[in-house]
Amino acid sequence: MSTPILPDFAGRHIGPRESDLAGMLKVVGVDSLEHLVETAVPGGIRAVTELDIEPAASEAAVLAELRGVAARNRVLTSLIGLGYYGTLTPAVIQRGVLENPAWYTAYTPYQPEISQGRLEALLNFQTMVSDLTGLPIAGASLLDEATAAAEAMTLMRRGSKAPADAVLLVDEAVFPQTLAVVRTRAVPLDLPLVVADLREVTTADALRAAAGGREVFGVLVQYPALDGRLNDHRALAEAAHEVGALVTAAADLLALTLATPPGEWGADIAVGTTQRFGVPMGFGGPHAGYMSVRPGLERTLPGRLVGVSVDADGAPAYRLALQTREQHIRREKATSNICTAQVLLAVMASMYAVYHGADGLRAIALRVHAHARTLAEALRAGGLEVLDGPVFDTVAVRAPGRAGDLVAGALAQGVNLWQHDDDTVLVSLDETTDLMVLGKVCRGLGVPAPDAVELAAPAWPEALVRGSEYLTHPVFSAHRSETAMLRYLRRLADRDFALDRGMIPLGSCTMKLNATTEMAAVTWPEFAHLHPFAPHEQTRGIRGLVDELSAWLCEITGYDAVSLQPNAGSQGELAGLLAIAAYHRANGDDERRVCLIPASAHGTNAASAVMAGMRVVVVRTDPISGNVDLDDLKAKVEEHREQLAAIMVTYPSTHGVFEDTITDLCAMVHDAGGQVYVDGANLNALVGVARPGHFGADVSHLNLHKTFCIPHGGGGPGVGPVACREHLAPFLPNHPLDPAAGPETGVGPVSAAPYGSAGILPISWAYVRLMGGAGLRRATEVAVLNANYVAARLREHYPVLYSGTDGLVAHECILDVRGITKETGVTVDDVAKRLVDYGFHAPTMSFPVAGTLMVEPTESEDLGEIDRFCDAMIAIKAEIDEVGAGTVAVADSVLRHAPHTARSLTTEWDHPYDRSRAAYPVGVDATAKYWPPVRRIDGAYGDRHLVCSCPPPEAFED
Amino acid sequence: MSTPILPDFAGRHIGPRESDLAGMLKVVGVDSLEHLVETAVPGGIRAVTELDIEPAASEAAVLAELRGVAARNRVLTSLIGLGYYGTLTPAVIQRGVLENPAWYTAYTPYQPEISQGRLEALLNFQTMVSDLTGLPIAGASLLDEATAAAEAMTLMRRGSKAPADAVLLVDEAVFPQTLAVVRTRAVPLDLPLVVADLREVTTADALRAAAGGREVFGVLVQYPALDGRLNDHRALAEAAHEVGALVTAAADLLALTLATPPGEWGADIAVGTTQRFGVPMGFGGPHAGYMSVRPGLERTLPGRLVGVSVDADGAPAYRLALQTREQHIRREKATSNICTAQVLLAVMASMYAVYHGADGLRAIALRVHAHARTLAEALRAGGLEVLDGPVFDTVAVRAPGRAGDLVAGALAQGVNLWQHDDDTVLVSLDETTDLMVLGKVCRGLGVPAPDAVELAAPAWPEALVRGSEYLTHPVFSAHRSETAMLRYLRRLADRDFALDRGMIPLGSCTMKLNATTEMAAVTWPEFAHLHPFAPHEQTRGIRGLVDELSAWLCEITGYDAVSLQPNAGSQGELAGLLAIAAYHRANGDDERRVCLIPASAHGTNAASAVMAGMRVVVVRTDPISGNVDLDDLKAKVEEHREQLAAIMVTYPSTHGVFEDTITDLCAMVHDAGGQVYVDGANLNALVGVARPGHFGADVSHLNLHKTFCIPHGGGGPGVGPVACREHLAPFLPNHPLDPAAGPETGVGPVSAAPYGSAGILPISWAYVRLMGGAGLRRATEVAVLNANYVAARLREHYPVLYSGTDGLVAHECILDVRGITKETGVTVDDVAKRLVDYGFHAPTMSFPVAGTLMVEPTESEDLGEIDRFCDAMIAIKAEIDEVGAGTVAVADSVLRHAPHTARSLTTEWDHPYDRSRAAYPVGVDATAKYWPPVRRIDGAYGDRHLVCSCPPPEAFED
Repeated sequence: MSTPILPDFAGRHIGPRESDLAGMLKVVGVDSLEHLVETAVPGGIRAVTELDIEPAASEAAVLAELRGVAARNRVLTSLIGLGYYGTLTPAVIQRGVLENPAWYTAYTPYQPEISQGRLEALLNFQTMVSDLTGLPIAGASLLDEATAAAEAMTLMRRGSKAPADAVLLVDEAVFPQTLAVVRTRAVPLDLPLVVADLREVTTADALRAAAGGREVFGVLVQYPALDGRLNDHRALAEAAHEVGALVTAAADLLALTLATPPGEWGADIAVGTTQRFGVPMGFGGPHAGYMSVRPGLERTLPGRLVGVSVDADGAPAYRLALQTREQHIRREKATSNICTAQVLLAVMASMYAVYHGADGLRAIALRVHAHARTLAEALRAGGLEVLDGPVFDTVAVRAPGRAGDLVAGALAQGVNLWQHDDDTVLVSLDETTDLMVLGKVCRGLGVPAPDAVELAAPAWPEALVRGSEYLTHPVFSAHRSETAMLRYLRRLADRDFALDRGMIPLGSCTMKLNATTEMAAVTWPEFAHLHPFAPHEQTRGIRGLVDELSAWLCEITGYDAVSLQPNAGSQGELAGLLAIAAYHRANGDDERRVCLIPASAHGTNAASAVMAGMRVVVVRTDPISGNVDLDDLKAKVEEHREQLAAIMVTYPSTHGVFEDTITDLCAMVHDAGGQVYVDGANLNALVGVARPGHFGADVSHLNLHKTFCIPHGGGGPGVGPVACREHLAPFLPNHPLDPAAGPETGVGPVSAAPYGSAGILPISWAYVRLMGGAGLRRATEVAVLNANYVAARLREHYPVLYSGTDGLVAHECILDVRGITKETGVTVDDVAKRLVDYGFHAPTMSFPVAGTLMVEPTESEDLGEIDRFCDAMIAIKAEIDEVGAGTVAVADSVLRHAPHTARSLTTEWDHPYDRSRAAYPVGVDATAKYWPPVRRIDGAYGDRHLVCSCPPPEAFED
Repeated sequence: MSTPILPDFAGRHIGPRESDLAGMLKVVGVDSLEHLVETAVPGGIRAVTELDIEPAASEAAVLAELRGVAARNRVLTSLIGLGYYGTLTPAVIQRGVLENPAWYTAYTPYQPEISQGRLEALLNFQTMVSDLTGLPIAGASLLDEATAAAEAMTLMRRGSKAPADAVLLVDEAVFPQTLAVVRTRAVPLDLPLVVADLREVTTADALRAAAGGREVFGVLVQYPALDGRLNDHRALAEAAHEVGALVTAAADLLALTLATPPGEWGADIAVGTTQRFGVPMGFGGPHAGYMSVRPGLERTLPGRLVGVSVDADGAPAYRLALQTREQHIRREKATSNICTAQVLLAVMASMYAVYHGADGLRAIALRVHAHARTLAEALRAGGLEVLDGPVFDTVAVRAPGRAGDLVAGALAQGVNLWQHDDDTVLVSLDETTDLMVLGKVCRGLGVPAPDAVELAAPAWPEALVRGSEYLTHPVFSAHRSETAMLRYLRRLADRDFALDRGMIPLGSCTMKLNATTEMAAVTWPEFAHLHPFAPHEQTRGIRGLVDELSAWLCEITGYDAVSLQPNAGSQGELAGLLAIAAYHRANGDDERRVCLIPASAHGTNAASAVMAGMRVVVVRTDPISGNVDLDDLKAKVEEHREQLAAIMVTYPSTHGVFEDTITDLCAMVHDAGGQVYVDGANLNALVGVARPGHFGADVSHLNLHKTFCIPHGGGGPGVGPVACREHLAPFLPNHPLDPAAGPETGVGPVSAAPYGSAGILPISWAYVRLMGGAGLRRATEVAVLNANYVAARLREHYPVLYSGTDGLVAHECILDVRGITKETGVTVDDVAKRLVDYGFHAPTMSFPVAGTLMVEPTESEDLGEIDRFCDAMIAIKAEIDEVGAGTVAVADSVLRHAPHTARSLTTEWDHPYDRSRAAYPVGVDATAKYWPPVRRIDGAYGDRHLVCSCPPPEAFED
């Protein structure tokens, strides 16, 4: 290939300067980037053509293009509802969180000592959800309402003693996309599902009758229901419990400020979305879904749970609780495959509640309700038939045969309503609705407009009126002026370490630059305020962007089709495996249900396979090279030849190596009739260099929040597109409310919204547009160079566990600490926490191999920062050597007591090392040091004493 | 008045909750807010009517209105030039500085220990200006190019030994607005000014001839000149020096990356703007002007100068240097009245240079130049006459009688050119110009468009080609990836204490909330990308906003007319005094030149009076009450009755008191034929409560960056409108290039742009719109309450120096530390620096009374933060008492050694107090402590060893 002309932006995105490359290559021992790639990447898989992507554009040009895309969207007033509502994002929260790199570039809070800020915000989120739903344990967010409902389904199945063939009973007034996602997820698990009208079901007999006479393991209702009505489900819940079923309410949190919460009328589980708490609709996402449960269910709760524990000084400290529940540990025994949460959006929603407080939220809800009641009265007065019964925010208009006309009438006034069927129109009001909007609706529907809205408590039956308090913790009243909120956001952000402070060298997580230009469009109204079910002609801009991004992803991966619907890598995995399963079924190969997974795979792979109805068979990996053991693979393929559905491999491997056997592996599995799933987690090592779709893979998910620059957001949002070859394309996800979102023959939706987290797709679109083919390839080359440079500099201090036959790693490297631990007692934890004192986020710990650290510098770290990191690791090795030499006991060492807080420097000092060495080891800039707010956290203590909502302020007294 | 209905936003802007008010009022000893105002504000001046401002709108509604305003602006491609150019603000700098409260809410760096971040950025700015202009000492920014040129005029006058009647010789090719501002400023000082064509002036004789045979004290040239040509001024400079004159070059920094810098061809002073270094045009401002000088002139440099000194540990530390030069100390002996700089914009420009580095800036300049050359060739080839000679970015087209047609032709293509006169069109290219723009220009001018632009070094005469290096300091090459820049911005911001961390209780500076919604529109392209001289029909939106804001300010102040042109309070003062002077002159009262100024006035008042050609006579203030001594005033009025021009008073007084004699004072001065100037610095205590224009004042300047929520930006931008009664309105500023910007009979421009810092006016507009009349009045009431609450809580610990006859203060209070100092040796400095350890910015020190602290909490601080401040002050008093009791010597005390850095905790500890007490006094949240990066700074050391550009990295080694 000829020397590429790199776009200006490549020089901003990529860390090392052109003038640094020669020196770095010399350390690695190769003489050019091209040679590096030729040496590291097996010839058999190297791409033979350059990426056929239009030439890169400048940052200004890309912003101008995005403004053009935005202009092709038409933002009307949306009263469509169905889980997506207009909302007012407080400006201080938009700027302070959604547009603030201190929040959006943070990683998942697996290192709790440097994550106390977002952990507190998530604890606020959990407290908010728990208070509002009336159920004491809430998780730290799920992907969306529909997937949360699907998770509730499996949780109910696990929690119910009903027989194996018992059904899930779903009320017919559940949102259609929720029902569809639940169905997609029920099918591979062989969970039967019955949809019925449950409004009048009040006895066990009626319940069984509604289930077609079958036993029931779970009941799912919408609260308020699709048609807007608030139904009293007390008797239904009692009946369900009587037959041994659990009850899940998909509940609207804003409604719960006025209505009796699910926890008080007998629901075991509540799920839903927190979108309307200040998170823009964004054409469907991302938003934080939620789940809360009654006591006893917390240990099988899917997703992450933040809890309170203590640090080494006994001070309260937050961390993720009950992590042993999680899929990355439970693998094929996992009950959910969820990794990514929606932290950034959960933070926003929690701050919305903090900013408004109980009285503020209640006032908003009353205002929405008053508008709904006023509208209903006006429509009735105008002669329209409006559904009776207590409602919160939604007015259902019955107009037999005329629903389409009514919707068109409103559209002419600039308002989108929802045509439920030929006879029914739904109008869902929200925080942004005012008298002018009511006027437009009335004019659109041909009735006189109201001229005032009067606030009053809802005239609902007593049983529906909420009597209990909520959000009584002081945090929900302490930050009510903008100044106070500004400072609270800053204070929390300052406790955390994100990419805006320094390197986050997490293997497999690709913590690269999230460029400001890429982020810009996310908060533009033209993208932010689109309802996912808005008419196509109003969403041409974002749809065009989806098409272009899809085409680029196909070109980059070598696949033929892509679905952007999965809103996390885990959902992409599931979608890919569902496509494989459907393909086999379509071929009459229904018995092909074995999924081979190498021992080194991420736990999510196995969990996804189980969720896709497959049986996991583990393939050994070579203990020396780390590669898939081809002999064992051959044996397993033979053993399961007739049942072989697929193999799931990560490439380059989770060991950070380009395995040169990948083409043989693909051939072997294909030969046995299986499909090859390549996990795209490590795609950052392949872009522009090799295409999975060309070297033998059939399907992959990608992580746009890794390779394609969507920020990690402190643990979400993510986007996990699934891409596949042509034969699998008919089995990609689709969506009942948007035929354009997938193939007619698709497996159903895996996310609530047709295009998942569409609101953040402009980020990845901009990245590709800014880099062009040449820039993307260069990024890969430098990512590989940076990793090999780290490996070369650290190899003599820490063994590099695996490498290719040529001695090179791919885009990350594993540093083996096991020998050190054996000899000195110093653990990976000690090294990781000590790195905090040096001003770094820890690398990935003990994945994929226990007792090791995995480092992925990415292309965005510059030589100065990489050297600073290597220097720190080498200095830590010297500290370890002191322990090894017996100069200091490990229990007394600076390593074991890391990280050191500033507070700890002021107390009695009985360490054998001095304060200066503790806090200012080599390379730390004294004028810009990051101070962890707590010392090392005792996770087990918190699991034994589970506290998952805000502790009282007294807990923090000295 | 009836109980007002407060807008929602008032609850966000104002700190204390409604439920806090009763308790606070009780502490103060009054029973209602209304009663408080009635008691505190003299009845004679209280407003009798409510503010007639339209009802407040919600944040969402105001943003929608602003979008409507924006839509009425039409952003075309501007090739107008004249000091305002298209530029690409790097997104990371826009978000990281201009949209980041950590930068924009900071105060002027008078407390250097908590300002090291912005001081470093300003030092980078100074280094950049110094390097590029080739003059070793550069200041930390001035208001704009035109005022910088006016400052250079007076500096040259001071620096020249030429006789008193010598003239300033101005080249005719100076930008017209620069000439006009210089003229406005020369007139009151009786400095004669001659405009001539200096291109061919190469000898002393020719120079004198050009000056009409008079002696010359200074020469001002534009480099490159208005017509685009780069002239070799070496001989001119020599000739000037020969006759004892100094030479100032108004120079374009981007051109200086290629052209021989002024310092190398003999200029003594360089001035200009740094706008095109990434700062949006913003319809004229704000941008950072600059000035650099040759050695020997630094001690009379106007404006602020950052220098390097050392802290208590001997570590390098930055602070404002040579402060004794400054107007607040030199008062009527001051040579300039500049207080506000343009820190925020200087930071942006410096970061633009840091991000691009020398090679990047040079590449941009080469690109601009290549486009200019290509355009010139295309126009010539198409038959147009293009001015000959070496040019950088500007092409001058001669088309006798057809200039208007050409401009119209280009406009039809969406491009604005500049019609210099009937025969000449100027086309100034910039960083954003590309081949497409050239195509539009060519089509507009009816010639074939070029189809390529070739880069090449400028074909200029050798003498004009820059040979020297610039920006060689490592800071200009260390932050070139976006990741590196992101972290550099964060690192610097983290060193500083701004409003996003805690209270900044600075008396007279009104550090209130700068709400995010107010800030939003500043960076919208429709406001950001308007050229100040763009045709009216393209700027209807911003002009409408200016009109509305002007009308509101008139309603609030009770004046009849306002000019928004002054871009700092000092310039507003000057404009107000110029109006008074012009009024007297118009009445034939030319001898009225005495300006009475109370002893307690801000030094700027006196400096402005001198600049307006007045003679300052000081009026005593009562040592007990702090009020103007009416007897002395009476005597002075009598003494100067025939010469009395004006009195300048601040109301409420700089002592923070509503003087009840204000109406008498006004009457006395009016009776003698004088005018009353009320300094609006303390308007935050008056809005909605009293109107200066109604209680006797004739003219005031306001500080939109105080009362009207424009953020302080770390020391600028400011906006200082001047408002006056009808009889002075004909003498407000106007502008030669925009007849709509002021009265035909006006005194000329005081700022470069017709509407000054128009780009930030949406902030104040939004504030008024969000608060409405009721909200504004409530803000004032709570500001007065908060100040009185602080006074009430602290009075028994620190004497409150002045109060009204009723015992109440206005919106601020003075805490007297003099007795404490006398008894214990603890100084205001000790208290101020110790407050940093407690997590506060210091109050105003020793103004208006030496040895005191002035505290203005503003309405935005909530009760929690105010109590935290009072608790800290009380705790500090206890620390002082220990010194007083002899328990500890002041030299050993925790007060004298404050502030304490984290680093200092790790060193040998030989203090009588322990580390914990040093770093974590009462009320400090250990998990969110602000750490100053340096210890107490020795300012005098730095003035003795003056270093005003970036020190080498080795200086920071341990």
